[in-house]
Amino acid sequence: MQVAVLHAPGDVRVEQREDPKIVAPTDAIIRLAATCICGSDLWPYRGIDKVDGPRPMGHEYVGIVEEVGSEVRTIRPGQFVVGSFFASDNTCEICRAGYQTHCVHSQPASPTGAQAEYSRIALADGTLVATPELPTEDLVPGLLAASDVLGTGWFAAVAAAVGPGKTVAVVGDGAVGLLGVLAAKQLGAERIIAMSRHEPRQKLALEYGATDIVTERGDEGVSRIRELTGGLGAHSLIEAVGTQESMMQAIRATRAGGHVGFVGVSHDVHLPGEELFRSGVHLHGGPAPVRRFLPELIDLIYRREIDPGRVFDLTLPLAEAAEGYRAMDERRAIKVLLRP
Amino acid sequence: MQVAVLHAPGDVRVEQREDPKIVAPTDAIIRLAATCICGSDLWPYRGIDKVDGPRPMGHEYVGIVEEVGSEVRTIRPGQFVVGSFFASDNTCEICRAGYQTHCVHSQPASPTGAQAEYSRIALADGTLVATPELPTEDLVPGLLAASDVLGTGWFAAVAAAVGPGKTVAVVGDGAVGLLGVLAAKQLGAERIIAMSRHEPRQKLALEYGATDIVTERGDEGVSRIRELTGGLGAHSLIEAVGTQESMMQAIRATRAGGHVGFVGVSHDVHLPGEELFRSGVHLHGGPAPVRRFLPELIDLIYRREIDPGRVFDLTLPLAEAAEGYRAMDERRAIKVLLRP
Repeated sequence: MQVAVLHAPGDVRVEQREDPKIVAPTDAIIRLAATCICGSDLWPYRGIDKVDGPRPMGHEYVGIVEEVGSEVRTIRPGQFVVGSFFASDNTCEICRAGYQTHCVHSQPASPTGAQAEYSRIALADGTLVATPELPTEDLVPGLLAASDVLGTGWFAAVAAAVGPGKTVAVVGDGAVGLLGVLAAKQLGAERIIAMSRHEPRQKLALEYGATDIVTERGDEGVSRIRELTGGLGAHSLIEAVGTQESMMQAIRATRAGGHVGFVGVSHDVHLPGEELFRSGVHLHGGPAPVRRFLPELIDLIYRREIDPGRVFDLTLPLAEAAEGYRAMDERRAIKVLLRP
Repeated sequence: MQVAVLHAPGDVRVEQREDPKIVAPTDAIIRLAATCICGSDLWPYRGIDKVDGPRPMGHEYVGIVEEVGSEVRTIRPGQFVVGSFFASDNTCEICRAGYQTHCVHSQPASPTGAQAEYSRIALADGTLVATPELPTEDLVPGLLAASDVLGTGWFAAVAAAVGPGKTVAVVGDGAVGLLGVLAAKQLGAERIIAMSRHEPRQKLALEYGATDIVTERGDEGVSRIRELTGGLGAHSLIEAVGTQESMMQAIRATRAGGHVGFVGVSHDVHLPGEELFRSGVHLHGGPAPVRRFLPELIDLIYRREIDPGRVFDLTLPLAEAAEGYRAMDERRAIKVLLRP
């Protein structure tokens, strides 16, 4: 099969490798209908995360089940499935509390890579959610978004305690931030402030429900949020970047007693304890337990109440994955969908 | 009047100063029935917080209202009152959300010091809560505890999402940690693990409802908590110390999706973003909005359902405040009550 492999920073090649096989009796093999490139794939692509030899890439996937291991009970060949980037048994105490990413059996869901024609998925029964029927073509991008960026933006909004009457601000205008706007709208936020200085992203944010756009960043961005909220700060902050600046911007733009939901993968972030203490904010985040939200998100997509697939503004054949990475790295595309 | 003044690290003197007078029309003057020394008073006493010239000490107080300013409407002379260490208007949006410590008009409640015979209290109507009647002598220590350490321990337990069926661990065996144990018990925790290596404090923790004592600290303490919780970590952690070690101990002893309530005043704490991200815990804390809880706590004390005053294991005349500081500094006393 074809799979995108990162050899070194900036060097992605689509190569021919053996089709994946069932390894554990809880595995499934899926044939991918669509896959994509994640903002987090850019960390190793840019050399910020270390690259130790060739690495099959990708962890976002939707597709048809081809084969299942002998212990798989609920997932069956022929089903169209969506899964999260972390495999989980979905039965342990941590999973039942809604933190499947931290499952006691947690592991990468697609160890063979998901920017590929086929992928082996671990703990299939716990990890995969079958759609009610085979989706029409127009639903596929949205379902693919559910497997990571939508689930992550949704978790960020839930972690930020978004709800009716709340003012929400979103730091980060990538796919996760934009879908955080969509989630905030769905969860009933009264006012949604998107922080973005990129016109196409501002436009999508507004279409997803943003009521205000703030182009300032850092301390100026914080001042602007405070101006817009009577000097108090927002009730809820969605942080979808993962840098020191974005985290401090999020904490400082939140009112005392408010909530910061942070889902940007932290890179070189050190939170000053005394400022956090004085701030009085709630802080919660981390790798999103996407699995918790999948049934609800699939339902919203099938009922066409949300259209998260619009974050994909570039579609390429899998064979052109390298161009997809370049487009995202250069911010020419918000998110790139790859067709195997 | 007599007031305890810190001149330099280790140098507390009880001096004669002018009685406080109404300054703002929202002030009240109270005659203290009892006051005490706080764990946080030890930071400047030990020279860890800088001492810039003589400072009147104390911020915990109960007493009888002597006089009120012209704009005070609900508090009246003759009432017995309890207040928090931060003054708040109790009407702004932040106060109404339960974060009175962060009131838009927040200020130190007793600018003239509360380790004194009299104290001026700012924003009397918002800050002070009158008891239903003059308390009998045996209730005074408990009411005094409510003004800070009980309210702080209670907030920590609420911030840590303590509730029925939960396993709670408490880092810190000072008065706040011990009253965190009491709060956890009242809030219905199933299991309460107190981390302490001091026999008298262990004893009080057990009397307040602790089910387990862990004497190990740091990584060993974390391992012990994990052992006691099936490898998962506690649901709720109360952090009542404020050091790097205690914060990391709290975060690491909490299961993914669990809650850390931190109320130890942070000193030189820097939280590693990546570890916090991976941990999946909720983090909330800061200076406790004691005012939120005062009506409920006063009621529990009057109904004799809780006896928080037992954290005072040494009572001295105000004139002997210096000995009180020494006793707490040397950990000969958990908490010292001063009688003006």
